[in-house]
Amino acid sequence: MKIRVLVSLKPGVLDPQGRAVHHALEGLGFKGVEDVRIGRTVELDVADGTSDEALDEMCRKLLANTVIENYRIEKVG
Amino acid sequence: MKIRVLVSLKPGVLDPQGRAVHHALEGLGFKGVEDVRIGRTVELDVADGTSDEALDEMCRKLLANTVIENYRIEKVG
Amino acid sequence: MKIRVLVSLKPGVLDPQGRAVHHALEGLGFKGVEDVRIGRTVELDVADGTSDEALDEMCRKLLANTVIENYRIEKVG
Amino acid sequence: MKIRVLVSLKPGVLDPQGRAVHHALEGLGFKGVEDVRIGRTVELDVADGTSDEALDEMCRKLLANTVIENYRIEKVG
Repeated sequence: MKIRVLVSLKPGVLDPQGRAVHHALEGLGFKGVEDVRIGRTVELDVADGTSDEALDEMCRKLLANTVIENYRIEKVG
Repeated sequence: MKIRVLVSLKPGVLDPQGRAVHHALEGLGFKGVEDVRIGRTVELDVADGTSDEALDEMCRKLLANTVIENYRIEKVG
Repeated sequence: MKIRVLVSLKPGVLDPQGRAVHHALEGLGFKGVEDVRIGRTVELDVADGTSDEALDEMCRKLLANTVIENYRIEKVG
Repeated sequence: MKIRVLVSLKPGVLDPQGRAVHHALEGLGFKGVEDVRIGRTVELDVADGTSDEALDEMCRKLLANTVIENYRIEKVG
């Protein structure tokens, strides 16, 4: 089954790459952009029946730094 | 409205960071992982009524390299 | 002149991508790897005579999150 | 010994993140920026005496996608 893990900086953490994209969009003339945050995704193809606990453990051990990042697990197929 | 752009390497393009995570998951004892691909997300808060064309133009001009990357636009709120 | 800015997570901040690469190198049989940290570089071609103060301001305003990241500016050409 | 691997997109490959930073620097009023390219670094602490061949193999197998990226290995300590 296909799993998507979305990892993003926690709301309070400054995101310089997001800020750069935000400025750049304004510079290119795009109006009305309020906020931009950059994150990363990890798309995994795992065995059917992989437990939620195993997926969660993968995230905490390897995919995200839970001090500064949030993660969310989505099943996509 | 909140928009999420998912940018990922095209299927044929080698992804060394994904490969590293794949090996690492196996090394940690996680079974049954078939494939891992790393991408990035750009989460945007844009004015309501921003057209699909404007969003698409943002992606092509600034958020993705369409030679090696695919992008997908999702409305999340 | 060419400038290279090296941005890396501060020593105390957990680096899951570095950890993944570390595990993967071990899994591939590379011996003796003690530590792996992932950072990013920003390579800039700026006007000759750009002051150190301007470069430093670029880093603090746009290139690094100084709460969790260190940066170092190198002149490379 | 400490090794730094610099991985960057090959010259011909479009770099949307670099373009975003470039636009953003201009938007913030920084003059004279000609070009911006984003790369990543992998800082490794490896056993003294690790051969150049082993380091090169790490890069080709795990750290860089040599189709679209160049890498350079520097000894930093």
